[in-house]
Amino acid sequence: MSASFHIGKLCIIGVGLIGGSVARALRESNSVDSIVGAGRNQANLQRAEALGVIDAYTTDIGKAVEGADLVLVAVPLGAMQSVFEQIKPHLSKKTIVTDVGSAKQSVIAAAQQNLDELFPRFVPGHPIAGTEKSGVEASFAELFQHRRVILTPAETTDQSALKTIESLWLACGAQVMKMDAVHHDAVLAATSHLPHMLAYALVDTLARMDDSQEIFDYAAGGFRDFTRIASSDPVMWHDICLANREQLVKVIRAFSDDLHRLCDAMEQGDSAFIKTTFTRAKKARDEFCG
Amino acid sequence: MSASFHIGKLCIIGVGLIGGSVARALRESNSVDSIVGAGRNQANLQRAEALGVIDAYTTDIGKAVEGADLVLVAVPLGAMQSVFEQIKPHLSKKTIVTDVGSAKQSVIAAAQQNLDELFPRFVPGHPIAGTEKSGVEASFAELFQHRRVILTPAETTDQSALKTIESLWLACGAQVMKMDAVHHDAVLAATSHLPHMLAYALVDTLARMDDSQEIFDYAAGGFRDFTRIASSDPVMWHDICLANREQLVKVIRAFSDDLHRLCDAMEQGDSAFIKTTFTRAKKARDEFCG
Repeated sequence: MSASFHIGKLCIIGVGLIGGSVARALRESNSVDSIVGAGRNQANLQRAEALGVIDAYTTDIGKAVEGADLVLVAVPLGAMQSVFEQIKPHLSKKTIVTDVGSAKQSVIAAAQQNLDELFPRFVPGHPIAGTEKSGVEASFAELFQHRRVILTPAETTDQSALKTIESLWLACGAQVMKMDAVHHDAVLAATSHLPHMLAYALVDTLARMDDSQEIFDYAAGGFRDFTRIASSDPVMWHDICLANREQLVKVIRAFSDDLHRLCDAMEQGDSAFIKTTFTRAKKARDEFCG
Repeated sequence: MSASFHIGKLCIIGVGLIGGSVARALRESNSVDSIVGAGRNQANLQRAEALGVIDAYTTDIGKAVEGADLVLVAVPLGAMQSVFEQIKPHLSKKTIVTDVGSAKQSVIAAAQQNLDELFPRFVPGHPIAGTEKSGVEASFAELFQHRRVILTPAETTDQSALKTIESLWLACGAQVMKMDAVHHDAVLAATSHLPHMLAYALVDTLARMDDSQEIFDYAAGGFRDFTRIASSDPVMWHDICLANREQLVKVIRAFSDDLHRLCDAMEQGDSAFIKTTFTRAKKARDEFCG
């Protein structure tokens, strides 16, 4: 299926880790004729061009999408609305637009509001891939290999546009699945957004302690792994937690209740509760992450 | 300093990841004549002997320490008291006893109570090293290389016994530091015990959800790293969290308050608070964990 995928002009708005990796992957699979990069950060775009990730760039986002067959919006969630607003007047009716945002309901709302009659050509997507690094320098063609990409089409989404975006991700080596946007946001709140909040909050809690320097000095290997995701881009995660705040607050507060229950068990010396919890967790982790 | 370290007969009670790795490290540095392993699990001890980690074994813990120059107690914290009680009648006055428990106040109390007049020959220790794996099969000689070992001697601890244990860890390639036991337990509650509680609680929270299978299916690479420590031995961690419950409950409840503050900020759309928190955390993580 991936062999059949080919586009002429691809426009990538936001050439960072994800946007840059899509560009590299599509180039490697000879799926694209030319790639124009767009964004606000000229230095980053220059670097992307120098690295050969894109063929040309402009900081004029409207201009960038003119004549594009496909527009991939890979900006932080907080910038989505503004990007849709800016590109709308310059989009042709045939152009397919897609995004890579980590929360889908807010992006869909922003697209619906701004793309208007072109909304059916918008395919909301989310590649479950990334590292704690950001920027085009961190991008690589294999980022999506064997990774899942979740598409959350609306009822009105054009079926041929949806097929094209499926093919794009297959060409990048990913597995594609479809899901309702509300369900996507609930699942990702639990599996991705909550762990990031815990990692940020943990490091911040420790960093604000009086003896924080010493505390970090005694952190072992497990701490390094556990907190790796706290090195992720703060602006991106600020945007994600506001965009998905409803689901995220729900899951954080429930998690906090679980923590208090664990504390109660410790104070009561409730060995059975503690052992059961840890054993169930280890079993689940070993089974699912093996 | 490590060159000067040599012991005749070493007895290791609990030949798991830590006990086995000490045995391997001391053998590799030619620091020991013979090693006898002891514990309750005969199959594990047989395996340790077959692997060449120990020279001989017995499930009679009292017998095991007879004639030993040094006894390393590497059992879960919950078994410490019983081990001290069993070995006391068989210890010579010259034998040095040390442990590797992750919480120190409870071990010191158990040693003081049971070793009685031999308590000064007991040196409480904690190597900040380990993996999520357990058992002698997971042990390796390099586990302590460039890792820290914290010794928490009491006022009455014999200085020559303390020096011997320092040398033992130097021979294993570790860095040795000394710390007050209360302070040790507070620092480790924050840097090690809290993250383990969060990882266990997170995986358990997700595992108890209705759609847990699907939820784990969509977990990305970050989740795998974040939850690695939830694959640690549940019994060991049950013991740690009860042994250090006072410090641990304090730090978990404080952390939970921080989570609620973060939720409040999300609900109020307090961008500044969220960005400041994430940025401070990323900076601390990048600085301290490289």
